[in-house]
Amino acid sequence: MGIPSDLEIATAAPLRPLQEIADRLGIPEDFVEPYGRAVAKIDLGVLDAPGQPTQQRAKYVVVTAVTPTPLGEGKTTTAVGLADGLARLGKQVAVTLRQPSMGPTFGIKGGAAGGGYSQVIPMDKLNLHLTGDFHAVTAAHNLLAAMVDNHLHHGNSLGLDPRNITWRRVLDVNDRSLRNVIVGLGARIDGVTRQTGFDITAASEVMVLLSLATSLDDLKERLRRIVVGYAYDGRPVTADDLGAAGAMAVILKDALNPNLLQTIEGTPALIHCGPFGNIATGSSSVVADLVATRRADIVLTEAGFGADMGAERFMNVKCRIAGLRPDAAVIVVTVRALKAHSGRFKITPGKPLPSELLAENPDDVRAGIANLRKHIQIIEGFGIWPVVAINAFPDDHDSEHQVIRDLCAQLGVKCAVSTHVADGGAGAEELAGALIDALRHTPRFRFTYESDAPLTAKIEAVATQVYGADGVDFAPAAATALASYERLGFGDLPVVIAKTHLSISHDPARHGAPTGWRLPVREVRAAPGAGYVYAICGDMRTMPGLSSHPNAERIDLVDGEIRGLS
Amino acid sequence: MGIPSDLEIATAAPLRPLQEIADRLGIPEDFVEPYGRAVAKIDLGVLDAPGQPTQQRAKYVVVTAVTPTPLGEGKTTTAVGLADGLARLGKQVAVTLRQPSMGPTFGIKGGAAGGGYSQVIPMDKLNLHLTGDFHAVTAAHNLLAAMVDNHLHHGNSLGLDPRNITWRRVLDVNDRSLRNVIVGLGARIDGVTRQTGFDITAASEVMVLLSLATSLDDLKERLRRIVVGYAYDGRPVTADDLGAAGAMAVILKDALNPNLLQTIEGTPALIHCGPFGNIATGSSSVVADLVATRRADIVLTEAGFGADMGAERFMNVKCRIAGLRPDAAVIVVTVRALKAHSGRFKITPGKPLPSELLAENPDDVRAGIANLRKHIQIIEGFGIWPVVAINAFPDDHDSEHQVIRDLCAQLGVKCAVSTHVADGGAGAEELAGALIDALRHTPRFRFTYESDAPLTAKIEAVATQVYGADGVDFAPAAATALASYERLGFGDLPVVIAKTHLSISHDPARHGAPTGWRLPVREVRAAPGAGYVYAICGDMRTMPGLSSHPNAERIDLVDGEIRGLS
Repeated sequence: MGIPSDLEIATAAPLRPLQEIADRLGIPEDFVEPYGRAVAKIDLGVLDAPGQPTQQRAKYVVVTAVTPTPLGEGKTTTAVGLADGLARLGKQVAVTLRQPSMGPTFGIKGGAAGGGYSQVIPMDKLNLHLTGDFHAVTAAHNLLAAMVDNHLHHGNSLGLDPRNITWRRVLDVNDRSLRNVIVGLGARIDGVTRQTGFDITAASEVMVLLSLATSLDDLKERLRRIVVGYAYDGRPVTADDLGAAGAMAVILKDALNPNLLQTIEGTPALIHCGPFGNIATGSSSVVADLVATRRADIVLTEAGFGADMGAERFMNVKCRIAGLRPDAAVIVVTVRALKAHSGRFKITPGKPLPSELLAENPDDVRAGIANLRKHIQIIEGFGIWPVVAINAFPDDHDSEHQVIRDLCAQLGVKCAVSTHVADGGAGAEELAGALIDALRHTPRFRFTYESDAPLTAKIEAVATQVYGADGVDFAPAAATALASYERLGFGDLPVVIAKTHLSISHDPARHGAPTGWRLPVREVRAAPGAGYVYAICGDMRTMPGLSSHPNAERIDLVDGEIRGLS
Repeated sequence: MGIPSDLEIATAAPLRPLQEIADRLGIPEDFVEPYGRAVAKIDLGVLDAPGQPTQQRAKYVVVTAVTPTPLGEGKTTTAVGLADGLARLGKQVAVTLRQPSMGPTFGIKGGAAGGGYSQVIPMDKLNLHLTGDFHAVTAAHNLLAAMVDNHLHHGNSLGLDPRNITWRRVLDVNDRSLRNVIVGLGARIDGVTRQTGFDITAASEVMVLLSLATSLDDLKERLRRIVVGYAYDGRPVTADDLGAAGAMAVILKDALNPNLLQTIEGTPALIHCGPFGNIATGSSSVVADLVATRRADIVLTEAGFGADMGAERFMNVKCRIAGLRPDAAVIVVTVRALKAHSGRFKITPGKPLPSELLAENPDDVRAGIANLRKHIQIIEGFGIWPVVAINAFPDDHDSEHQVIRDLCAQLGVKCAVSTHVADGGAGAEELAGALIDALRHTPRFRFTYESDAPLTAKIEAVATQVYGADGVDFAPAAATALASYERLGFGDLPVVIAKTHLSISHDPARHGAPTGWRLPVREVRAAPGAGYVYAICGDMRTMPGLSSHPNAERIDLVDGEIRGLS
């Protein structure tokens, strides 16, 4: 591509003083706590401080995508590039993103700070510890786990059923050997023997909970409600029952403050929390968005995977909890993804793309474009305006872009080609203009379901109205569990449907916009701490593994400089 | 005692701007990276930067103690109070201490930042994440563990014997259930099944290695040399063989920079690393001491447990590696410890002291004073001057202090009563004066053994010359392992003897200054990354548990304020 590596670009970019970045959002120095030279935490006291804004003023825009290939469609680069493009057009703008998980940085691929000339910097800090928020989640999560096993060890007065403990442990590392473990071996003083496992930290309920909390008090309330398992009589046992919530809140106190960084072009970027996109919400924090939407003209935030996954949860879960209402959605699309949706190619992460896929062939795009059409409909179903962003690659062809433009013209949807990876914000100015146009419309936002609908109805609403399924098949165990959740008082919670991100359906082999299918719900689980019930459709991996030659082997420190982070 | 709680005192203390603290050590602003308002990291570039001092100028003083009771003798409070006392006498002074482990904060007792009016602040940051160095150690350690199991999973080309993998995992939490675990259960894609376990992060070889590294390059060299286990043919397999050292160094890059905090009275405190005192060195970092000793008049550092443990390793391991030479040692003693060494009382952590122990009884002190005499001899054996610091408690009696003063007068050793916990630096001025007097003498420092002595001879030298044992009994397996370490090229490493800290012998029931005993070495292990071989005498716990009602249940966050941290 002729573009230097992400790390080279990021390292060469001049870092502006952080207070200058904070000033662009009008955040006073008293609330900007430096963490090293290039990162700061925003003290959440700014939300309540006298003289500080208390109401949403920004247009709030979610960046989503078509159903991605395993390579991803470039939502983060688009969000970053578009933010820089909007800044170039004179808008006061902020982009809010998830913090990347450190574990996968040492796995197949690295960085998740954008790419090319649309990056958040410093990318090394961002991809490593940042300000330690993930570590705090790990520590709080595992303290609760230790208190669960400690409770069993010291007589189990709560009658917790060791076979029905749902709280696992977490680590921010790709370590398949920890997926299923037996703990408590050894002598009597070494605890109670039982089988459990580890998830990656991004899959922790504490991570989601941190991302959804609206204040420190709300954080503690959510921690209290965490269910660690069930007693012999079926009663849920909570973190509050174990007396753990206060200590967990102390561990997480600073982690609730959003992190301020900057794009290469100096646009404020709030990077905060990183819940998994498959079993969790896949969105950055509520508090970062509260800070940003009270100050900027436009706030761009990203939601994981396609519009069926991240954007749906962004609307029905995050916005519901935050009390924020979105104004528009940017749907990122790539020529390669639509070609993949033709079903004619196989894309494997870590391997080069098939050369036939890179050849000019608008028919392949046409064969996969139903997927984009469906995602546009999904967004319109929420009553907000979609803008289609064609994330251009150097090996794209105009004829292929034209297929996408034609569809958008036909549907009356704004569409723009963006070359932000190669050109930074300048490459996203057309897209920025399209978004500004779309934001002139008044949105009529609506949820897919109301909070007081039964849990089964909520799952059916998402499956039919969002995914386009004909209906839902609940496995008997799932139906029983949903009924019990209603009795336990979890019935008013929103739902998250844990399914593959590689299809709008539950089946990764179904490309495009699948029709004539029913959603099979195998199992449901409650995450009352985070604040939702989730339905599991298919195998969800919550702890990745390393490849035979992981990226860790190539990452190095030479003369104090980091090499190989990408 | 009429003194407010440690947290109350710490919270009420005014925090001086950190650059003011850095200025007291002449550290230019360019090398002071703020982490929040009250903590900074010192960029290690300051060691090589043009115009910065490159040679030791400070008197270098280790704070050690008699054989402690399970409550500890107050080494940290004494180090902090003495530093403040020296500052009051006009000395430019720095105190370097270990960072407390977060896990135990939620266990039986909390804080390890000193106590009363001799504390390092902010104590909440210090006892929680600080700047995330412990988390970095956890992450680097567990990445290596994941790469070990990943190697087994992907074909084990190095021929690593799964029954002979010595590298465990670590977490900074008191979690007895993780001491012995089986990993790799589940399906074929979930790794290779084997038994292993978790230690607390403070017990990680990576923690010791970080504390002993003299530069980033040295850090990477030490990481390379870590032995994770042995191949079927007996060859050691290293982190370098697995290609993990570079990535681990990247994870630890910032963690090698020492943390700058302040005492309540504004004395610079470098808080860095926290290796375990039982199986590891129990000393804060070499790099913090390199920074401090080039700048201050006097640098006080603490070494864990009694002089037989921490001080011996401080001299023979840390000073040897750092190239630093100590000038004096402060031996902290309490009346209660000497009474306990009479063998007439039983002290249990978490329970009140027996009332008979608190009653005035100089005879009990006299009955236990052999322990102090022995520790004085240990220090003198290194050719440096001891100063005895009586850490006074409100329920001490002058007649009891007099027994200690009499012994010191008889031995020609400086001695002072210090009331720093109640009175801060003012209470340590007498002690500060005694130390300044002792530092007028020229030390004739000598190691207990030379690097080129055989490993068995090194262990025997420590056992006989330091502990006063009649000799060492090596179990057959230990003797075999030592012979193999000599063949493998580990013979030039110093040794650490892992034994109880509650007796100068290996047997916690032997009080005072045991004689007529031999040291039984059950097992030896190599830590070539850290840079020593260790001999295990007795059961060493490397993962604590929680009590039936751990401190975590009382720690809380109320209106954004931390409660119950102590």
